[in-house]
Amino acid sequence: MASKYIDLSTVKFFMNNVQELETVLEKERFVDHDLESVNLYVDSVKQFADRELFPYFKEMDENPAHYKDGSIHVHQQVEKMMKEGGSMGLIAAPFNYEDGGLQLPLLAHTAANYILDAANNHLPGYSGLTSGAAELIVEFASKDLKEKYTPKMLTGEWGGTMCLTEPQAGSSLSDIVTKATPTDDGQYKISGQKIFISGGDHQYADNIVHLLLARIEGAPAGTKGISLFVVPKMRLKEDGELLFNDVTTVADFQKMGQKGYCTTHLSFGDKDDCQGYLVGEENNGLNYMFLMMNGARIAVGRGASAIACGAYYASLEYANERPQGRKLSSDGTKNLKDKQSLIIEHPDVRRMLLLQKSMVEGSMNLIFKAAKYYDLQHNSADDKEKNKYHTLLEMIIPVVKTYPSEAGIYSINNGLQVLGGYGFCSDFILQQYYRDIRISSIYEGTTGIQSQDLLGRKMMLNNGEGAKLLLEEIKKTIEKADQDDELKEWASSLNNQLDQSQKILFHLMPFAIKGDYERFLADASIFMEFFSLIIVGWSWLEIGVATKHALSISNSTLDSKFYQGKLDALEYFYVYELPKTKGLAEILLHPSSVTIKKKDKVIN
Amino acid sequence: MASKYIDLSTVKFFMNNVQELETVLEKERFVDHDLESVNLYVDSVKQFADRELFPYFKEMDENPAHYKDGSIHVHQQVEKMMKEGGSMGLIAAPFNYEDGGLQLPLLAHTAANYILDAANNHLPGYSGLTSGAAELIVEFASKDLKEKYTPKMLTGEWGGTMCLTEPQAGSSLSDIVTKATPTDDGQYKISGQKIFISGGDHQYADNIVHLLLARIEGAPAGTKGISLFVVPKMRLKEDGELLFNDVTTVADFQKMGQKGYCTTHLSFGDKDDCQGYLVGEENNGLNYMFLMMNGARIAVGRGASAIACGAYYASLEYANERPQGRKLSSDGTKNLKDKQSLIIEHPDVRRMLLLQKSMVEGSMNLIFKAAKYYDLQHNSADDKEKNKYHTLLEMIIPVVKTYPSEAGIYSINNGLQVLGGYGFCSDFILQQYYRDIRISSIYEGTTGIQSQDLLGRKMMLNNGEGAKLLLEEIKKTIEKADQDDELKEWASSLNNQLDQSQKILFHLMPFAIKGDYERFLADASIFMEFFSLIIVGWSWLEIGVATKHALSISNSTLDSKFYQGKLDALEYFYVYELPKTKGLAEILLHPSSVTIKKKDKVIN
Repeated sequence: MASKYIDLSTVKFFMNNVQELETVLEKERFVDHDLESVNLYVDSVKQFADRELFPYFKEMDENPAHYKDGSIHVHQQVEKMMKEGGSMGLIAAPFNYEDGGLQLPLLAHTAANYILDAANNHLPGYSGLTSGAAELIVEFASKDLKEKYTPKMLTGEWGGTMCLTEPQAGSSLSDIVTKATPTDDGQYKISGQKIFISGGDHQYADNIVHLLLARIEGAPAGTKGISLFVVPKMRLKEDGELLFNDVTTVADFQKMGQKGYCTTHLSFGDKDDCQGYLVGEENNGLNYMFLMMNGARIAVGRGASAIACGAYYASLEYANERPQGRKLSSDGTKNLKDKQSLIIEHPDVRRMLLLQKSMVEGSMNLIFKAAKYYDLQHNSADDKEKNKYHTLLEMIIPVVKTYPSEAGIYSINNGLQVLGGYGFCSDFILQQYYRDIRISSIYEGTTGIQSQDLLGRKMMLNNGEGAKLLLEEIKKTIEKADQDDELKEWASSLNNQLDQSQKILFHLMPFAIKGDYERFLADASIFMEFFSLIIVGWSWLEIGVATKHALSISNSTLDSKFYQGKLDALEYFYVYELPKTKGLAEILLHPSSVTIKKKDKVIN
Repeated sequence: MASKYIDLSTVKFFMNNVQELETVLEKERFVDHDLESVNLYVDSVKQFADRELFPYFKEMDENPAHYKDGSIHVHQQVEKMMKEGGSMGLIAAPFNYEDGGLQLPLLAHTAANYILDAANNHLPGYSGLTSGAAELIVEFASKDLKEKYTPKMLTGEWGGTMCLTEPQAGSSLSDIVTKATPTDDGQYKISGQKIFISGGDHQYADNIVHLLLARIEGAPAGTKGISLFVVPKMRLKEDGELLFNDVTTVADFQKMGQKGYCTTHLSFGDKDDCQGYLVGEENNGLNYMFLMMNGARIAVGRGASAIACGAYYASLEYANERPQGRKLSSDGTKNLKDKQSLIIEHPDVRRMLLLQKSMVEGSMNLIFKAAKYYDLQHNSADDKEKNKYHTLLEMIIPVVKTYPSEAGIYSINNGLQVLGGYGFCSDFILQQYYRDIRISSIYEGTTGIQSQDLLGRKMMLNNGEGAKLLLEEIKKTIEKADQDDELKEWASSLNNQLDQSQKILFHLMPFAIKGDYERFLADASIFMEFFSLIIVGWSWLEIGVATKHALSISNSTLDSKFYQGKLDALEYFYVYELPKTKGLAEILLHPSSVTIKKKDKVIN
């Protein structure tokens, strides 16, 4: 197995220099932290990942979480992740002190979790979902529920989940049928089936606290009639004793990848004794859930980028060690007396490595940027600033979730190819990364759904003011880059693409205006691909500006190869990736509507 | 599991109408066959695949071939494939009567094997490699070797393999070190290790006949010193008895996919008693092997396209049965009183299905075309015609191997996405197709190697006369399509792309001329991607012309939906795939050489 899964200097450069952690730390809430303390925290997480996550990565794939005799059995490192990780604050980090947290910026928490994901993506989901579930309780539930359930979640003694999907509904939450029936004591009885529940059960948690969407009897149809409940596996009696709450693990889902992260099928109320506790107001459940969505989507993008990151270093290590073939001489032949070259000397292998680096680092920085926006949205004193960063985050969030997931597949596909036949073999790790990442473009809203969100909602946000604001931010980076001789070519390319995006929106908008939403959104996934390249191009330009700045000051701490690597990957992105917008634009501008169902058309 | 894995009408339409099987059957060698008999043969293969291959597809993945106690254990259907398949002529079909064959055109054999591959890609490799090994013996070995070894190979009692790869050499055949030492009786003793040997051993063959590359002591360095040997696992004594020939199975390779098709590590001559029989002349081994290469590459492209074909029908079936979500109304909302739509009604799902169909059928027809070229090359009486088809086959063969492999990954990736979360689950079949196809772009020459062949050799073939001939063929199809109102837009698009390809070659050529082969070939894989879109665009235009012709005659046997499906997939390809050449051309024309190793550059 490879020995490196992440480059800590890159993580810190993006966190400290490109995203300027200090501007976040200036906010009142983070007064106890400084650059040094946060970086020490990140170091300690890296050590934890080196020791407790990375060494078990392959083993967890080979010994999948599984259902047996009514419960789910997971790898022992789940306990380490939850309890040791919990005691380090890996679950509680972003929470307030009063709730047992560390009041760390999401940017720092995201950097730390990126490292964990890159080390072993089968583990951070357990802590991440527990954190997310606890956050919903802290934000929206009663003081009583918060005091009863969150403390043990934040220490990792208990787990937490999100229970949305049902067999008949899938992504269509309007069609949820899990029932909540009011009882005389002001609570609810829950009955229904939930599937695809990550971290839904395991032997290392005394309790699992489910945040569950259900429909109170008589509620309006569709998403407006959905309420949010806390439904623990074990409910707490007044004396503190745990009592089984009629939440049964029915089965698990065996999967192509991420096998150590259990996916369960849960049944609520088989014996009519499942208590649920309403969170906030009736019928407002989806709104609460959606307020958590940006954080969850940052986390999925982070995981995908990190998986691709691990795969990148594994293929890079192989390329640096494997001799094969020879350099072509000037008559196009090979000199057999030469030793075989290392494969990293072949341009095609370098192309596959640079492709990976440009996708991995471009997306890592984008994810950190999203986390920074989140921090500024939630911690600015000024409403205008809050709104600004909220809007910017809303604008980029579909890309933050989708680009790392989709480009990650492509990136790892190239990493696997670097290994040739060995890439396909189970003894080598690339095939595992290849399988693991495939879920990212499905869960937490598929690429199709993210694309509809991007084109259908976000591009229209506040009558286009959101898009305008984003454009201005991008233009600021372009202006900075334009002042640098080496970056100005890329600045100009990105600027051209912005113009192209306007042209495309002007072409598509009229369909929406005349009510033909089907046509308007038919190519949303193509638009996502197009727009993602612009956003990641922006991310790279930002990295370029920070890199040139670091090179220009005398006391930069990293060696010149570190910076040269960034500039090369930036060039790669602009020469090999950004031009793909050309073809995508042509698709988007084409009048054909071949994908829309019409009379007498079949797909056969 | 899905119930359909291929559309037999499509196979026959491409074989009979688009590739015009009759023009092949006119050749002297095929005098005993006619359209009807060949189609009946294809029907019988379909029935065999329905009965003996498809039902075991998932089971073979779940019970991988494996090494135990010195030998390899495979699924029982391997015996069915080899012996029942063998008795149907599935191994011997393309051979001459005198060698025990059916003298069937490769076009028919390819259509038949496409069906087998689509049904269960874990099985046809066993028969295919046996056929290939026997072909080498028949073509180049002595009469004695042929009489001793091929009859039982062609009936499927014995297996056959190709032993090229060695641990230290990988794709670099110049570096193979397996030794052949002349003995007093005019034979050779073989000693060495071969890895990644498909079908290298199993319990259902009394003997496995290896065609092995080795270096005779004192031979010139590199590829000019490689000889080809027949090295049976059991050698035949004069009395017909089988005697162990010191070929040991050392281990197997467990893989991400195609798990039922064993991949072995063989050791030759551990006890200094491994006899090898020279095929043809000393040091000419690679030439013999290369003469078989086009057939082998057609077979790999065929397999990849067929795997994607199976995946397409599985995702199509799911999309036709799964209700989820609702159509948007003219105010952009959904009416909850509507029943949920089938997902096949959503444009984004239709896009993913049409994407698959356009890749699967575009590549299927291309593969059939390559097989037809092979038939015309080998069976024309006229040398000029022979040369013409030989050249055309040489020109397209890197694409025939690569496009189905690379686009197949992309196609199945979309098929998996159609199923959402279920696509990632082991109970559903898409994840298996996704894993299985991943080997196709690696074995039989990786995409990188095929791309170097395409740009470095084929584009230069006969000083560019090869490219010119191919261009003329494509132009013929364009001219036909140009006369049809519905096709002329696509004809014109393809013509523009041909011009673009000339421009790119004019840009790249000077690098070769001035001896900078590294730069010339640095973007060969991008050129492959670009050129493949043109070739598959041509394939679709050809399908379009045949479709319009079929619609214009009154007695066409298929219903109009069949033909409409072809025209829609053609439109999809031209609207959504061909435009990608735009971005690729921009990459190819960019002056950057970021992927080429230079002083002080590192990838880190």
